[in-house]
Amino acid sequence: MTRPGPASRSAYRAFHAIPTRWKDNDALGHMNNAEYLSIIDTAVSLWQLDQGLSITGPDSLRFVVVETGIRFFAEAGFPDMIHAGLRIGHLGRSSFRYEVGLFRNDADTACTEGFFTMVLTDTQGRPTPLPKDVRKALSTLMM
Amino acid sequence: MTRPGPASRSAYRAFHAIPTRWKDNDALGHMNNAEYLSIIDTAVSLWQLDQGLSITGPDSLRFVVVETGIRFFAEAGFPDMIHAGLRIGHLGRSSFRYEVGLFRNDADTACTEGFFTMVLTDTQGRPTPLPKDVRKALSTLMM
Amino acid sequence: MTRPGPASRSAYRAFHAIPTRWKDNDALGHMNNAEYLSIIDTAVSLWQLDQGLSITGPDSLRFVVVETGIRFFAEAGFPDMIHAGLRIGHLGRSSFRYEVGLFRNDADTACTEGFFTMVLTDTQGRPTPLPKDVRKALSTLMM
Amino acid sequence: MTRPGPASRSAYRAFHAIPTRWKDNDALGHMNNAEYLSIIDTAVSLWQLDQGLSITGPDSLRFVVVETGIRFFAEAGFPDMIHAGLRIGHLGRSSFRYEVGLFRNDADTACTEGFFTMVLTDTQGRPTPLPKDVRKALSTLMM
Repeated sequence: MTRPGPASRSAYRAFHAIPTRWKDNDALGHMNNAEYLSIIDTAVSLWQLDQGLSITGPDSLRFVVVETGIRFFAEAGFPDMIHAGLRIGHLGRSSFRYEVGLFRNDADTACTEGFFTMVLTDTQGRPTPLPKDVRKALSTLMM
Repeated sequence: MTRPGPASRSAYRAFHAIPTRWKDNDALGHMNNAEYLSIIDTAVSLWQLDQGLSITGPDSLRFVVVETGIRFFAEAGFPDMIHAGLRIGHLGRSSFRYEVGLFRNDADTACTEGFFTMVLTDTQGRPTPLPKDVRKALSTLMM
Repeated sequence: MTRPGPASRSAYRAFHAIPTRWKDNDALGHMNNAEYLSIIDTAVSLWQLDQGLSITGPDSLRFVVVETGIRFFAEAGFPDMIHAGLRIGHLGRSSFRYEVGLFRNDADTACTEGFFTMVLTDTQGRPTPLPKDVRKALSTLMM
Repeated sequence: MTRPGPASRSAYRAFHAIPTRWKDNDALGHMNNAEYLSIIDTAVSLWQLDQGLSITGPDSLRFVVVETGIRFFAEAGFPDMIHAGLRIGHLGRSSFRYEVGLFRNDADTACTEGFFTMVLTDTQGRPTPLPKDVRKALSTLMM
């Protein structure tokens, strides 16, 4: 298995700080896998809101998540401040991929790296080209 | 502190079985407080759906939760089947109270008892009388 | 129903800021009830950690939550910064009550007020007197 | 992108039924990504418990999740019964991969397929060979 090591903060473009919660830890005393995904989800949502990319409401963009994945390198848990770094790893005609590195407190090496592959769809659920302004916003996250 | 003891199953009218999940347990190895509330929430929602009381969509009922509370008598956790028993403890003009007892696996005594006080509101958020059919459905849960 | 109105920030002693997550919102587009409890849980845990009151590990304090409750006055949701204010409303021999007000962003009036009644127990689960240092720490949160 | 279509139930060996909860749905009105992972997590945990593979307590197996991923084909949400099918896709010396298909209610085609790659570690966190009985249990999930 070729498994690239975790990246440093310099491999990501935009950061959001999200603290862990007591309930994030499971019976093994560390953050449950699902909560990492929720933190990634939140970081992506916050960035989109900052860019004016609305995903709720009548005029919202219909982004569909088609795939997600996480690689775990080191534990995180409560109480930690997680710094979620974002970048765009792929920007296609109607699909794109957010890549997110999670950095624990002062660490410069990611404890976790994940991604969301999204497709913009029309009201029938068919892939539709990314509008110019969406493409422009996403491209600011390319390295 | 006057603290009535936990009730038995016979004190409740309608039951829904909801299994716990691995992530429900927190670092102390038992179900986290917030998850009890989610199980109660789910039992109430399932019962309402069974009665045709829609809370989502354009014609939905605007039930607002104004208060909730839980008393804990014994632990639950993963893997347990939680049997949530429902009854109506108060049925007013526009407000009512769901009371929910949670029973662990085969236990006849509740490990937890909680309630939701709800108010039906109009589109301006003001209390509005419960329609006849809603009142009728809720009254089937009175003891 | 005597229902006291929501308090202002001045009614609480210690504050922790906890941002909401995308997933906190449920299908009604506002924060789910259970997540309020998780935010209260987290604020209490953070405060206890700051005071050196350990609740995990071999020498931890066995605090048992016996009752919790929340009153809802106004909605919160994603993306909000929740400022959780803490105070102690009751300090008994072996039990005490955390009272927590949640303030949304810049609001000075609580959107939600909740409490946790806890009992310190021994290894057999019996109530045991609060040690002097625990009582001292908790008393700093009395108004 | 080569994206294999979703498998049918016959591609999986062991099934656990896990109902969704009201809170699983996010503001878009369908199950949040993180909750899929929690359901997969729960199905794996239930299967391991059935096999006597303990992951908590002093004599527990130290399985570390090193990677996880999910591909989404169709929505699920509340109220659905999710049938989680398990198989082992890879069985190495110290690592293995659970593959899990999620089937909504009566559907024979997976709405979601995910995996957990796990490594058994020693007390120092180094990969250690899977014991014979663990390997035997896991191999019953190979297709």
